[in-house]
Amino acid sequence: MICEILSVGTELLLGQIANTDAQYLSRRLSEYGINLYRQTTVGDNPERVKQALSEALARCDLVITTGGLGPTEDDLTKEMVAETFALPMELHQPSLDALTQRMNRLHPGKPLTPNNLKQAYFPKGARILPNLCGTAPGCVVEAEGKAVAVLPGPPRELKDMFEHALEPYLREKTGAAIHSRFLRIFGVGESRVEDMLLDLFHLGSPTLALYCGAGEVQARLTVCLPHGQDPAPILDPVEAEIRSRLGDAVYASGRDETMPRAVLRMLEEKNLTLAVAESCTGGMLASELVDCPGASKAFREGYVTYTCAAKARVLGVPQDILEGPGPVSAPCAQAMAQGALRVSGADYALSVTGVAGPDGGTEITPVGDVFLGLAWAGGSQVQEFRFLGDRSWIRTLACVNALNMLRMHLLSRN
Amino acid sequence: MICEILSVGTELLLGQIANTDAQYLSRRLSEYGINLYRQTTVGDNPERVKQALSEALARCDLVITTGGLGPTEDDLTKEMVAETFALPMELHQPSLDALTQRMNRLHPGKPLTPNNLKQAYFPKGARILPNLCGTAPGCVVEAEGKAVAVLPGPPRELKDMFEHALEPYLREKTGAAIHSRFLRIFGVGESRVEDMLLDLFHLGSPTLALYCGAGEVQARLTVCLPHGQDPAPILDPVEAEIRSRLGDAVYASGRDETMPRAVLRMLEEKNLTLAVAESCTGGMLASELVDCPGASKAFREGYVTYTCAAKARVLGVPQDILEGPGPVSAPCAQAMAQGALRVSGADYALSVTGVAGPDGGTEITPVGDVFLGLAWAGGSQVQEFRFLGDRSWIRTLACVNALNMLRMHLLSRN
Repeated sequence: MICEILSVGTELLLGQIANTDAQYLSRRLSEYGINLYRQTTVGDNPERVKQALSEALARCDLVITTGGLGPTEDDLTKEMVAETFALPMELHQPSLDALTQRMNRLHPGKPLTPNNLKQAYFPKGARILPNLCGTAPGCVVEAEGKAVAVLPGPPRELKDMFEHALEPYLREKTGAAIHSRFLRIFGVGESRVEDMLLDLFHLGSPTLALYCGAGEVQARLTVCLPHGQDPAPILDPVEAEIRSRLGDAVYASGRDETMPRAVLRMLEEKNLTLAVAESCTGGMLASELVDCPGASKAFREGYVTYTCAAKARVLGVPQDILEGPGPVSAPCAQAMAQGALRVSGADYALSVTGVAGPDGGTEITPVGDVFLGLAWAGGSQVQEFRFLGDRSWIRTLACVNALNMLRMHLLSRN
Repeated sequence: MICEILSVGTELLLGQIANTDAQYLSRRLSEYGINLYRQTTVGDNPERVKQALSEALARCDLVITTGGLGPTEDDLTKEMVAETFALPMELHQPSLDALTQRMNRLHPGKPLTPNNLKQAYFPKGARILPNLCGTAPGCVVEAEGKAVAVLPGPPRELKDMFEHALEPYLREKTGAAIHSRFLRIFGVGESRVEDMLLDLFHLGSPTLALYCGAGEVQARLTVCLPHGQDPAPILDPVEAEIRSRLGDAVYASGRDETMPRAVLRMLEEKNLTLAVAESCTGGMLASELVDCPGASKAFREGYVTYTCAAKARVLGVPQDILEGPGPVSAPCAQAMAQGALRVSGADYALSVTGVAGPDGGTEITPVGDVFLGLAWAGGSQVQEFRFLGDRSWIRTLACVNALNMLRMHLLSRN
């Protein structure tokens, strides 16, 4: 089944809100193996709604509209669906009863206005989709071998109506499901990953696609199968092949397995604890760790030693390092990590010191120069990076590379 | 000028990301008085990209595309624009030089792959839009009385390229300039702000719009004037009126004047310094401060004391507080702030301790319960909040409210 989404709403064309309805529907449709080829957004304008609807119906089997179901004059999606299929509008008595009851509860004694009444009229023969979160019911209209599902715009109402009323309809119509797997890759650039996996892009099934994140690449494998069929025999061998080519660069699988989560999980499995000492990232590394629920199982504490005085007093960085190589140097990163290890009593300590810019760069340590330190009871190591980007991007890359440094060390310990 | 947006990206049709690019562009175009009649999204499919592009060009003067500019095989937006206008692709030497330089810096000695090279080719005669945040430049192609602007998909790159490279083009074409002022309001809800400013929404020029942020409301005044005309006589009196009605709730003006920046500026002006002690926010407060360039003028250091042991050892929180009222309590917030003040030697210390969830809530301290502490040489104060939302939202609200607590204190000192 081929589908398109038609979003109706001038507020979308003015950029007042993001089209999260389209995102939600797209994700849910892909789960049903419904091919979505296009999303279109138009304003609350009768002619443009009708034109976009006709165009979409010429290309696909099912159009899902969002928005334009409210009580005001410029809410006209249902009416345009009726016009497109040359159907009259008909009163749906159960919807009128529900509406009357609801309005009586909200505004006792107030009669229904013609605008309210409008919400109980639907194209003749439509299947009504009740609205449990608002006043405007939706509907499905089938005609001329095509179908249009008309859903409300407010995201809460849309989701509820999709799950309770449209899903049963879609399950009837399809009988297929999409299965995806995400592999998260760190330390190899997007074009290099593509080169290494080139032949796998042409398998047909599963399909392979790459996405870029902060310092990382995500590879997504997707296959569409009849409902109930196990995707593992198709996905497993391709995942194994990717893992064998990329090795340790694959740091996690799963859409939500970010680098902080992956590292916290490794630490937790080994019963190890972590402390961090930060200068240019200024708490961002600790914050990304604490953002993971259950972080306290492995994360102990952090020190944001932004000034030289704090590096010396809190972490015991020697004055001759601060005055010699300086606060942005390998010896300082090392001393910060060792200091954090000592003060916290954790098993590992990571440190970050660098120049995030826009000011503060010198010839020896330009903006983007970052030193990462790792210390443990048996030793320490330091890495230097040169990141390109603005202040916030440099700090983001510093954090994820610091975590990857610990990840690689933990892997090598095995 | 009539415009359409064409977003290219299978990840949008799969619902993996929301189309925030379309929202951003829509908002910015409306500021230029450019009529946007339609947004279309298609996947990384050459035929469907070309079809959607031709259809859009038949309806409007300017099509802005987003996405499909990367180095991989399915990045093909530029190529489809060239085919649509029957233009050959040509090497743009300055883009190749910039790309080579960038790759050399990132991966010294590694040769450019054919995929990298692709990013330096453009439809013949295109005006190149440099990409200051990534590798793929954009372009504007004018042909057959129409124009297509090709922008990258990653939101950071898109915004930067729009502001630095496409806006000058739009100003040329429209002869108009947009002037906006942002007033940032904290501590008054959106509907209350709307009530207080109700008559100002009907001025016509400037237009007034409200946007919701994390715990704050932004009021934007916008006026579109012929290029060169001074907006001050139109904007100044309305800004003054808003400020007089909202008082201290207006904490800053300017789109980039976030709460951390506003507070750092206040501290800097008074030559005061700040340290922070964080539990549930886990470094987020320090990180937001350090994210502001020049933060070191006022921000000293931070302590992420996620465990009770760290609160006691690093900040000297007494055991009877940790074992009595507990780590999420007013006395603990106070002791954390006082400890941070003592250890850091700063003029002010802020502390945050609370339950960010999803686990860890109790009947007395449910998820969302947060205590904020402020200490200075002459005294201390504590505030309790109950925030609603997920882990990340609760932490975000805790940070901005902590900063506002310090802001109000600094205002009262005057």
